[in-house]
Order: sequence, then structure tokens, then C-alpha cells
Amino acid sequence: MRIVVLAGGIGGARFLRGLKAAAPEAEITVVGNTGDDIHLFGLKVCPDLDTVMYTLGGGVHEEQGWGRADETFAVKEELAAYGVGPEWFGLGDRDFATHIVRTQMIGAGYPLSAVTEALCARWQPGVRLLPMSDDRVETHVLVETDGERKAVHFQEYWVRLRAAVPAHAVVPVGAEAAKPAPGVLEAIAAADVIVFPPSNPVVSIGTILAVPGIREAIAEAGVPVVGLSPIVGDAPVRGMADKVLAAVGVESTAAAVAAHYGSGLLDGWLVDTVDAGAVAEVEEAGIRCRAVPLLMSDLAAATRMAREALTLAEEVRA
Amino acid sequence: MRIVVLAGGIGGARFLRGLKAAAPEAEITVVGNTGDDIHLFGLKVCPDLDTVMYTLGGGVHEEQGWGRADETFAVKEELAAYGVGPEWFGLGDRDFATHIVRTQMIGAGYPLSAVTEALCARWQPGVRLLPMSDDRVETHVLVETDGERKAVHFQEYWVRLRAAVPAHAVVPVGAEAAKPAPGVLEAIAAADVIVFPPSNPVVSIGTILAVPGIREAIAEAGVPVVGLSPIVGDAPVRGMADKVLAAVGVESTAAAVAAHYGSGLLDGWLVDTVDAGAVAEVEEAGIRCRAVPLLMSDLAAATRMAREALTLAEEVRA
Repeated sequence: MRIVVLAGGIGGARFLRGLKAAAPEAEITVVGNTGDDIHLFGLKVCPDLDTVMYTLGGGVHEEQGWGRADETFAVKEELAAYGVGPEWFGLGDRDFATHIVRTQMIGAGYPLSAVTEALCARWQPGVRLLPMSDDRVETHVLVETDGERKAVHFQEYWVRLRAAVPAHAVVPVGAEAAKPAPGVLEAIAAADVIVFPPSNPVVSIGTILAVPGIREAIAEAGVPVVGLSPIVGDAPVRGMADKVLAAVGVESTAAAVAAHYGSGLLDGWLVDTVDAGAVAEVEEAGIRCRAVPLLMSDLAAATRMAREALTLAEEVRA
Repeated sequence: MRIVVLAGGIGGARFLRGLKAAAPEAEITVVGNTGDDIHLFGLKVCPDLDTVMYTLGGGVHEEQGWGRADETFAVKEELAAYGVGPEWFGLGDRDFATHIVRTQMIGAGYPLSAVTEALCARWQPGVRLLPMSDDRVETHVLVETDGERKAVHFQEYWVRLRAAVPAHAVVPVGAEAAKPAPGVLEAIAAADVIVFPPSNPVVSIGTILAVPGIREAIAEAGVPVVGLSPIVGDAPVRGMADKVLAAVGVESTAAAVAAHYGSGLLDGWLVDTVDAGAVAEVEEAGIRCRAVPLLMSDLAAATRMAREALTLAEEVRA
């Protein structure tokens, strides 16, 4: 079975770990969001790709969900001693090495997809990890601070401002001119199932879908497309998805997110049991829906969720 | 008193610490060698500038003579785990931060001289540290391995090959087109004394002198130019200066190094007491010479050496 998963960071990575356990024989291709990539200290940092790579490769800081286990912070301390910021983005020494290797390879002319493959040669994530695009796409958020509106990099909004200021728009700058990375459209066309994990529907999966060709390829793949709600009981399971949903005019409910993707894209949708009341609404919109536990408290829970998603896909197919 | 010192790495840095102690009121400008600069992991590394900066700024690894005190090596370990080399050049985590800041600033368009000034704003070395040039100069060594001759970067010859293979030539690639960094010629013209510390006469001081205009400015400054022999008893005090002296056809003796600089450049020369027999030969060549202890075993010894150099300069002036 060939499965394609569009993934953001922590939620996507933890779901993928469950999916690997649920379908150990499957050939999984992950299309990773790169809209939250950022240049820091002259280095190219790809938070979502790295979170998937570290999580599936056994190197992630488990409690934190991102970054490296057994991390130290000598480089960061020294940069601060030089007065060089930003200080709000926490890069550890081990993590720095990844960004140094990536930046060096990109400087030598390799596309991000080739760099990601090279990094994964070490981590052996057990999936094929592709960036959504080799072209630069940078998610900007139109925020309001002190009555003034200005566009900031997504990471500045998310990490520095902690999504605590009003956001009026989310723009994946560069997306309209970006091409899907080599292998992305081919993997979608060859997929038996396509899954949207409980990643952020706006700044993770939404950004991937903003790369011209990807949404169309998924809609035309002719295979079940199933998703898992990142909203449980009207609130994000983790992160601050509600803030960016509001910015794009979508309610923070499991049903609203399904409608946001739409029945033209989505065939099946899993909501949490607390949102069982939303099942009828989603199904009326033409999307098959089931209510199952959606809290990825551990690998076993993530595995059960992945199994439910695959079961729903088979229901859709039948 | 305004003193200009041409400096390489460890020997130059330790001498400078002595000079600051010997002449606490002096305004010292250091023209640093950049011929051994190297790009590693996509980062610009300036070993000699950093050795001077860390040593005078109190951050150096004292026993080693270069690199940072209290150093850790997480980044290096990770790079090795990615299979990314070279592994023969030991960069620590704290040191990496310096190279990251430097590379970022250079990428943003700042010349090396401005970058060095910015880094020194943190380290406060108590001297004005100037790179010899903002232009790229890279010392290559023509080595012979397995009967084949090939040019390698100086660091590869020095660190990886430990100067243990025959060297047939030393070429400061790019020097002929390089311009002295802003302030270098002005500092030389305004100097009361110019000092060559016991740095490598070929790959440190020789490279600085290879930048068009610097040698001429020193010769025409009309002030005492005094040097300290890096060769004691026919062997280098530290490092492997004898190897590169052989490559340029100069004997490894205190007198031969003085003759290599020449009386057109050098007015005074200090040799070690074990080389007292060379004093007459050096003086016959038109260079005033004294034999004094030249082992920089500690700060007190370096201070005494610096005092002897300044005393010799006054003798020359009189």
C-alpha cells in the first residue's frame, strides 16, 4: 500500500509514527511543509521537515516534540554574547549541525529535496520525506500590534509573539510561483490513500495545498483522501490553530475545518468522540465522517488513530 | 607610543599579551594574517585573527593556545554523524558561533575588517585588530605525496598532513591582487615602532608582507622595525616553521630568518641566548642584533621579550 501524507510539524510527525506502526508494510511518502522555513544566523532552518525527520529517526526531544534530545546550547549562548539575535528562536548545538549541513549543501547548489534526502540518509525515518517544493515559500502573517498592521514571518508570529496578537491574514509568500518538489506529484498520482494528519489546516497543510498543482493532483488522484481533525471540542489539540483559522475566517470546530478543505478534496474525516455531534453536519457536506478518540497521548493512541484513518479510507473506497 | 605588530596565531598572540603588559599605555595596532583562513562547513574561519582575539580577550584555551576555553563539541560530533567533513579540523561549539556570526555578516555584505571590529566589540582585546586585507588570500602549499605534487590549502598541509610531507612551495594565492584592509597603511605610516613577533616568517608574517603595499609602507615608515626570532637553536620554538622555511629555501636558523626579511625591512633582531653566536652575522648584514631569552613560557617571559624588543627599537632609533 502506498500512502501519501501531507505533514506539518509535531502533530504530523507523531501521527506518522503511529501510521508506520499501523501499516508497517506500507510505502509512505511524506510531503512536508516548508512555509515555516526561516533563515536564522545565515542558516536555513526547516522546522517541519526536521521535526518529522528527528521524530521518525529517533532523535527528537520527546517532551518538547521538536528539536534534538540531549541538546546543549553553547552556540546560542555565544551568539547572545555577541549580541546577535534573534534570541527568541531556540536552536541547540546538535540542531545547529543540521542547519549547517543544509546551508552548506544549498550553497553548493543542491535543491532542498536533495538536501533532505541526504540528511535522511543518516536519520532513516522509514518514510520518503519530500519538501513540498524546492522553491522558497515563506508564510507571512499580517498582524496587528499597537493598532498598526504589519506582515511578519510566521515564526515571528508563532514563536516570538506566541500568536497572542490579532492576525488578519496568512499569506504563503512565493507559493503561487512555486513548483512541487520532484516526486511530489508522482507520489500523489501513485498513492492508494492520501492522509491529512491532525496538522495545522492553515499554516501546515494549507500551505502545502497552496503550491500550484498539489491540490489538483490530490483531487484528481481518484483514491480516498482522509483527514483527522486538529480541533477537538472547539480548541486545537495542541498549538494555536484557532488563531490562524480565525485569520482565514474559519471557525475553530472540527466540522468547519472539514468544510474548509471541502468535499472536492476530502473524502473522509475523523473527529474526536467529544465532537460526535458534528458527524451528521460533515456527512451532509458530502464527507464521510467518524468520531473516534483523537488525542495522541502516546504511540499506541497515534497507532489507533492511524488505523481508524486507514479503515475510513477503505470504507470510502468501498 | 603607537606600535604596529604583524601577527600570526599563537606566537603572535602570546607575544601581544606580553607587549600589552610591557607597554600598557601604547596604542597597539595588530595587522593579522588571513592567509590561513578557510571555509569549513560553509563557514568562514579565520584562525589567526581568532587566536589573537580570544587570547587577548581572555577566551582562549590556554594550554592549546587556540580555540575557546571550556569548549564542547556537539556540533562537530553531529557533523561527523552526517558524514560531513573534514573531521581533521577541530571546531568547538563556542568557536562555531564566532564563525556563524562572521559568515552571516560577510553574507550581508560587510568586509572582514568590519566583521572583525564587530567581533572585537565583544572581546575587547585592548588592541586594534585589523585583518591584513579584506580580499581573499589563501595560502596554498605545493606538497609531494606518493611521488605526486599537488597544491593543498595551508590548513590541510599544516593540520591534516602535520607538515610531514615534503613542501616545495608556499603560495599566498590572491595576494598579488589584494589590497591592505582599511587602516593598515595608515597605522603603519603613523607608527612609532613596528614589531615582527616570533610568528612564522613564511606563512604568517610573510603572507602579510605579500599584500602589495604593506612591505613598502613598513620599509618607508622611517621608524624602527624590530623582530624576534621564531627559531631557537636551529629549530622552531613551536609549530613547524622549519618545514615552510625549507620550502622557500631558507635555513632554519635565527640568522637566516633575519637575512630572509633583510636589512631593507628589518632594523633590529632578537635571537635567543643559545644563538648568541649568530649576533655578529646578523649585524654584519646591517641589522642590529641582541641575544636574549626568547622562550615565552609564561606572561612574564613574554613581557620581558616585548621589553627587549622595545629597548632594541630605541637603540635603533638613537
